Amino acid sequence: MSVPLLFATPEDAEIAFYEAVARSNLDALMAVWSEDEDVSCIHPTGQHMQGLAAVREGWRQVLAPARMQIEANCMTRWQGMLMAVHQLVEHLHLGRELAGPLLVTHMYIRGAHGWRLVCRHCSTAAEPGMPQQESLRRVLH
Amino acid sequence: MSVPLLFATPEDAEIAFYEAVARSNLDALMAVWSEDEDVSCIHPTGQHMQGLAAVREGWRQVLAPARMQIEANCMTRWQGMLMAVHQLVEHLHLGRELAGPLLVTHMYIRGAHGWRLVCRHCSTAAEPGMPQQESLRRVLH
Repeated sequence: MSVPLLFATPEDAEIAFYEAVARSNLDALMAVWSEDEDVSCIHPTGQHMQGLAAVREGWRQVLAPARMQIEANCMTRWQGMLMAVHQLVEHLHLGRELAGPLLVTHMYIRGAHGWRLVCRHCSTAAEPGMPQQESLRRVLH
Repeated sequence: MSVPLLFATPEDAEIAFYEAVARSNLDALMAVWSEDEDVSCIHPTGQHMQGLAAVREGWRQVLAPARMQIEANCMTRWQGMLMAVHQLVEHLHLGRELAGPLLVTHMYIRGAHGWRLVCRHCSTAAEPGMPQQESLRRVLH
C-alpha cells in the first residue's frame, strides 16, 4: 500500500510538482494535486481541465512527447493558514530549445494530507516592448 | 472625505469590479483592489502589472478607447475564512463586437475593509476543437 505524500508547506508541494515534470513522472505529478477539492488547470494553450481525470489526461499529453524541464521563479506569495497563492515566471527547456516566459498562478489548500495544489493557471507572457493597445487588438480580433 | 467601500463577500467585490468596468469608472475599479497587499494583474495580452500604480495604469489603457462590458460566469469557487479564489469565463462586449472567451482566476483577501481583489490572472481560452498538441506547438514556437 502506498502512503500518501504529506507536503508540510506550499513550497514543498511546488518543488515536488517541478521535480515530477522534470522526471516526466505523471503519478508523482498527480500526487501533488488535491483529492479533496475541485481541481482546475489552465494550460498556456488556453485548454482548461477540470477534475483530476481531465488534469491527468492534459498532463499526460504534455509529458508524453519529450522530456521537459521547467525553470520557475516565484514573484509573489500570499500565504494564509489554509490557502496560499503563488505567482511565478516559468521558462521551459525542451531538449536544447528554450520556451517562455510563461506567467503562472498556483493555488494551494491545506487538507488532511498537508498542502496540495488545487488550481494552476498558466499563460504566455507578452513580448517585451509591445504596447498594450497593440497586443490587445491582436487578442481581441 | 470619502469613506472606503466595504465588501462583505468576495462576490460583492466581484460585482463591483464588473460594474466599474461597464461604467469605465477607473476610481471605482481601483476601489475593489486591496491597498494592504501586493496586487498583481495579468491581462490576456500577457502584460503583467504589479502594484496599485501599475494596475491602475494598465486598466486606464484598457478602459480609455471604448466602452466595454464584461459578461462573466463563475465556474469554480474556493472559499476560506480570509482568502477566496474564483475561476470565471468572460466574454467582452465592445460596442457591437463580442470577444472571448477568456479564462480568469480572481483571488480575494479579507482585510480591515472587507474583501478586496488581490490578484487577477486573465488569458484567452483555446479555440474549441483544437487538439492540445497542435496548440502547444503554436505557443512554444
